[in-house]
Amino acid sequence: MRMVDVIAKKRDGKELTTAEIDWFITEYTAGAVPDYQAAALVMAIYLRGMSRRETVDLTLAMAGSGDTLDLHDVAPFVIDKHSSGGVGDKTTLVVQPIVAACGVPVGKMSGRGLGSSGGTLDKMESIRGWSCNMTLPQFKRQLAEIGLVLSGQTADLAPADGKLYALRDVTATVASAPLIAASIMSKKLAAGADAMVLDVKMGSGAFMPTVESARDLAQIMVDIGTDAGRKTVAMISDMNQPLGSAIGNALEVKEAVETLQGGGPATFWAHCLDVAAYMLLLADKAGTLAEAKELARAARDDGRAFRKFRDMVAFQGGDVAQIDDLTLLPQAQFVEPIIAPRSGFIAAFNTAAIGWASVHLGAGRLVKSDQINYAVGLVLSCAVGDEVAQGQVLGMIHADDRAKLEQARAEVVTAVSWSDTRVAPLPHIYETVTA
Amino acid sequence: MRMVDVIAKKRDGKELTTAEIDWFITEYTAGAVPDYQAAALVMAIYLRGMSRRETVDLTLAMAGSGDTLDLHDVAPFVIDKHSSGGVGDKTTLVVQPIVAACGVPVGKMSGRGLGSSGGTLDKMESIRGWSCNMTLPQFKRQLAEIGLVLSGQTADLAPADGKLYALRDVTATVASAPLIAASIMSKKLAAGADAMVLDVKMGSGAFMPTVESARDLAQIMVDIGTDAGRKTVAMISDMNQPLGSAIGNALEVKEAVETLQGGGPATFWAHCLDVAAYMLLLADKAGTLAEAKELARAARDDGRAFRKFRDMVAFQGGDVAQIDDLTLLPQAQFVEPIIAPRSGFIAAFNTAAIGWASVHLGAGRLVKSDQINYAVGLVLSCAVGDEVAQGQVLGMIHADDRAKLEQARAEVVTAVSWSDTRVAPLPHIYETVTA
Repeated sequence: MRMVDVIAKKRDGKELTTAEIDWFITEYTAGAVPDYQAAALVMAIYLRGMSRRETVDLTLAMAGSGDTLDLHDVAPFVIDKHSSGGVGDKTTLVVQPIVAACGVPVGKMSGRGLGSSGGTLDKMESIRGWSCNMTLPQFKRQLAEIGLVLSGQTADLAPADGKLYALRDVTATVASAPLIAASIMSKKLAAGADAMVLDVKMGSGAFMPTVESARDLAQIMVDIGTDAGRKTVAMISDMNQPLGSAIGNALEVKEAVETLQGGGPATFWAHCLDVAAYMLLLADKAGTLAEAKELARAARDDGRAFRKFRDMVAFQGGDVAQIDDLTLLPQAQFVEPIIAPRSGFIAAFNTAAIGWASVHLGAGRLVKSDQINYAVGLVLSCAVGDEVAQGQVLGMIHADDRAKLEQARAEVVTAVSWSDTRVAPLPHIYETVTA
Repeated sequence: MRMVDVIAKKRDGKELTTAEIDWFITEYTAGAVPDYQAAALVMAIYLRGMSRRETVDLTLAMAGSGDTLDLHDVAPFVIDKHSSGGVGDKTTLVVQPIVAACGVPVGKMSGRGLGSSGGTLDKMESIRGWSCNMTLPQFKRQLAEIGLVLSGQTADLAPADGKLYALRDVTATVASAPLIAASIMSKKLAAGADAMVLDVKMGSGAFMPTVESARDLAQIMVDIGTDAGRKTVAMISDMNQPLGSAIGNALEVKEAVETLQGGGPATFWAHCLDVAAYMLLLADKAGTLAEAKELARAARDDGRAFRKFRDMVAFQGGDVAQIDDLTLLPQAQFVEPIIAPRSGFIAAFNTAAIGWASVHLGAGRLVKSDQINYAVGLVLSCAVGDEVAQGQVLGMIHADDRAKLEQARAEVVTAVSWSDTRVAPLPHIYETVTA
């Protein structure tokens, strides 16, 4: 097989065979196909697209390019969730303990944050001593013992995806739905999930700006999961405003714990309940979504979910005192209000800009080597549709640096659009996508 | 400027600015833009195309990426010709001496052959001692003294083109009309031509299979020349059969010399006359094409063109005895006929296959490092439309190896298509393309 022929075929809009896709991924991972040929191919894929069969083949080839996990010795049914990333998205911290508390073991390998949306591991590292570093045997032992693990990349999952993603990032070929879908799903398949709930965000803080584009991506991912023999459901959820109130690592852990204890923002809880319920439904713990929601709610209400979370923190070396008394979590030096510059209805947020404001405070990374300040961030107390009077508090800024505080305040105020007439609140979920 | 933004713009079908194209070529030539980003861009160009303005900008940027010649101190008006390459195409060897003999100095930097079409320099090197290696001052001195030079790449013309072409070759992005046109024209512009006659081949032995595709390419090249302020004419000529009879280096030199002396195949002479006449017309040596043809014919008939060729051979160290007595040129060991396997009319040739048969005999290169055998090749004595009886001689094979001879014989016989009914002969030129 010659790479130039494979490129030419896709360039001309033809379908690549399974053998061609397997060959490309194998040779590219091995370094036998150079980056410049891979770059030409991904641009051709970007512009010519891929059929459902090609996309599934690409996903399976990437999933098979490194370690593939089989967790069935410690978990009879492996369920995973994926979020396409958003501002204030601490859903994993709430949902996984709930699902684990309902008797479905959840072992998740997570990533770190870069840019305007934070990473789950970074958030958890707000807790003193908590570590995501473990070996695969340790991962399995914890999964068997307490049914809940949140780790880093404990295995070499889908290395082809990592290599290809780095190339796409510098060749303007990231925003291709089949390539995005294959990238996400290859890691899920390599991690050995039997079923997946995909939380695809849309809006001003998400990669996909519209319901339509999010639906296209969601459908491709559901198709891949289905064709790979995994039960897969996707939900299109809102990212036209931050999810919940807290943005920033320790602030989000606090909000997640409060939510597990029955508090927290109602919209965030509603979102967690949906995600958890779909996971329980796919795991056959309930016959209907309503039944699944009842199971999830009960696991929160009687404290089982919180205790599961606390167990996980303890097992991974975290200081549970900070969970039992949330005031012991890292605290910022300055906590100051964001004041409404006018009266009116909140019409929209530039959610990505709010994410960036949090990054600029120190809560996230502009480049991979940046250190995170766990204490800083934002807590917004307003939402689209709210009627606000001039001078009212829109939220609080938690900062360790006065100049950064003022910058973030200006960024958040600029990120709010106003209306003189009433505006409808936003739904938290638009629709679900199934096979 | 960021390369990823330039790629994204072209990916989305937008027009690149002059500054963006200049920046890309400068940085790519300097090695500051890596091959993988250039590969993504050229694939986007392949699939999205380029406007006339972009194509001209790309050509000028590549032309300016290395040396740019100004030959006006030794030639008041610099005219060049380009052939898109074909089997048996020894036009340059006939046309340039004619034009020079008519008082228009012609200094040409040529290339070598690779694949099914031969290179002008390789053909000339059949002549013992003849060399294309010279310095730019030597090139200019010869141009001033005898008005005719045929050299190798004496200057570093359009290095960006060389680098980009090598990349396109391995990324399935060669066959893009704007990229082909920019590649050809950048070298012509860098070489300082005031006017150009472009011989764009079409057919089974050419890059462009149809008149339409050849016309598209020709029009882009004429547009580039025009917008760059150079007088440019293109002709679409036939490559559905080899040009003239001889294919192979010494065999083609012999046919060229015979043509300069009033012999040679009539169709080949007709083609040379057209190319020479357009060159003389652009150089203002004649008011009409008919007048220009008369000048060209006269320069052949009275021996001036042949003497000019002989002077050039002598000036460049060649053994003129081989020109004066063509039997002194390299001779193959075996010369055997190709026999018609049936009676009928010749309907078509697979011209590229005939070119490859010659390469397999040793007359050309499969890879750059291959040594050429100057003696070997083919002399065809039939053309499309000819009525042939079974057993009749279709041509002669000149070989130094019996196994290769038999292989070439089979290849040529297979390359001929037959008809039981009369077939019209092919024109040698289909049309001309002007600004």
